[in-house]
Amino acid sequence: MKLYDYLPSGNSYKVRLLLSYLGRAYIHVPIDIHKAETHTSEFLAKNPAGQIPMLELDDGRILAESNAIILYLGEGSPLISADKFDRAKMYQWMFFEQYKHEPAIAVARYIRHYAMDNRADELPKLMERGKAVLAIMERYLSERDWFAGDARSLADVALYAYTHVAHEGGFDMAPYPNIQTWLERFSDHPNHILITDQPSSG
Amino acid sequence: MKLYDYLPSGNSYKVRLLLSYLGRAYIHVPIDIHKAETHTSEFLAKNPAGQIPMLELDDGRILAESNAIILYLGEGSPLISADKFDRAKMYQWMFFEQYKHEPAIAVARYIRHYAMDNRADELPKLMERGKAVLAIMERYLSERDWFAGDARSLADVALYAYTHVAHEGGFDMAPYPNIQTWLERFSDHPNHILITDQPSSG
Repeated sequence: MKLYDYLPSGNSYKVRLLLSYLGRAYIHVPIDIHKAETHTSEFLAKNPAGQIPMLELDDGRILAESNAIILYLGEGSPLISADKFDRAKMYQWMFFEQYKHEPAIAVARYIRHYAMDNRADELPKLMERGKAVLAIMERYLSERDWFAGDARSLADVALYAYTHVAHEGGFDMAPYPNIQTWLERFSDHPNHILITDQPSSG
Repeated sequence: MKLYDYLPSGNSYKVRLLLSYLGRAYIHVPIDIHKAETHTSEFLAKNPAGQIPMLELDDGRILAESNAIILYLGEGSPLISADKFDRAKMYQWMFFEQYKHEPAIAVARYIRHYAMDNRADELPKLMERGKAVLAIMERYLSERDWFAGDARSLADVALYAYTHVAHEGGFDMAPYPNIQTWLERFSDHPNHILITDQPSSG
């Protein structure tokens, strides 16, 4: 299978991280979103939403949306609980991640990282929303080690991706000790990789 | 179980619609989001994100995020395909719905419905994004009857909720004949209910 991705993207990192956990080989196809490589007619024919990450299966079928891709790849692994309610909580936090977390924290990081002065006026609202998101996570983690059930799940994979680089978005993480402990707990895994690790192809 | 919801909310409607399909009884707890009833300390203790819909199981456990709730309730029903790839496409479109569709189309509807003049400046960008979302759906439906696989799934439930009221957000649906046909196909079901139907409690 081929993973079309952009290295600094937390959404892409979720997929690379999971593939590392699972020990799965894949062909890495780097895409430069700043050269509009997600908007070529060839790319759009595969994913009309024009987004990475995108997974192309060996038979040519295409999957998009980072959290859908990790749900697909994670099936049958311990990262999806056998317990129905724990699984539902995993879904809950994955939708929370895409609806509330990513649009605030990842976007703030993106604007700062590329010093997009033309979007700087978005930052105050993004910071406010991002802090509210972090406060919700901090409170939830005061009573739990993981987001869904008693073990690491895809919800942790999804939330780790942009939380561990939230400081790059300008977020001071000092007020969130439970989140910091959870980030350390999460990265303590034999197959952990960094967002900056260059994937080996194939 | 108890469903905390707000009748005009498309996110809540997804859950009511699915419960009707499944013929499941529930206690309906109406919440007025305009009276800050999602931000009382009692509500926030149940759902720190302060959002409806919220499902309270008979044992008191709580589920939030509309798409997570319908994934939980829909387990074992024909609305979740037994095919792994079809299921992944269902997830893909459900994340698309929460990431791209709802933040444009539902928010435009919300601003217009409540005539929020203080947010009117958001409308041009929301309309542009909403039209891009509808164009992606229109193109996808040119070759398919349903969003995931060959049958109605939770992806259709999720996307129907705000698409069928997109005109209330100011979207002209004439350019999207495939979407219109799909909306008719979807609503042609013996247990279909309208977003305005008052749920009977219990």
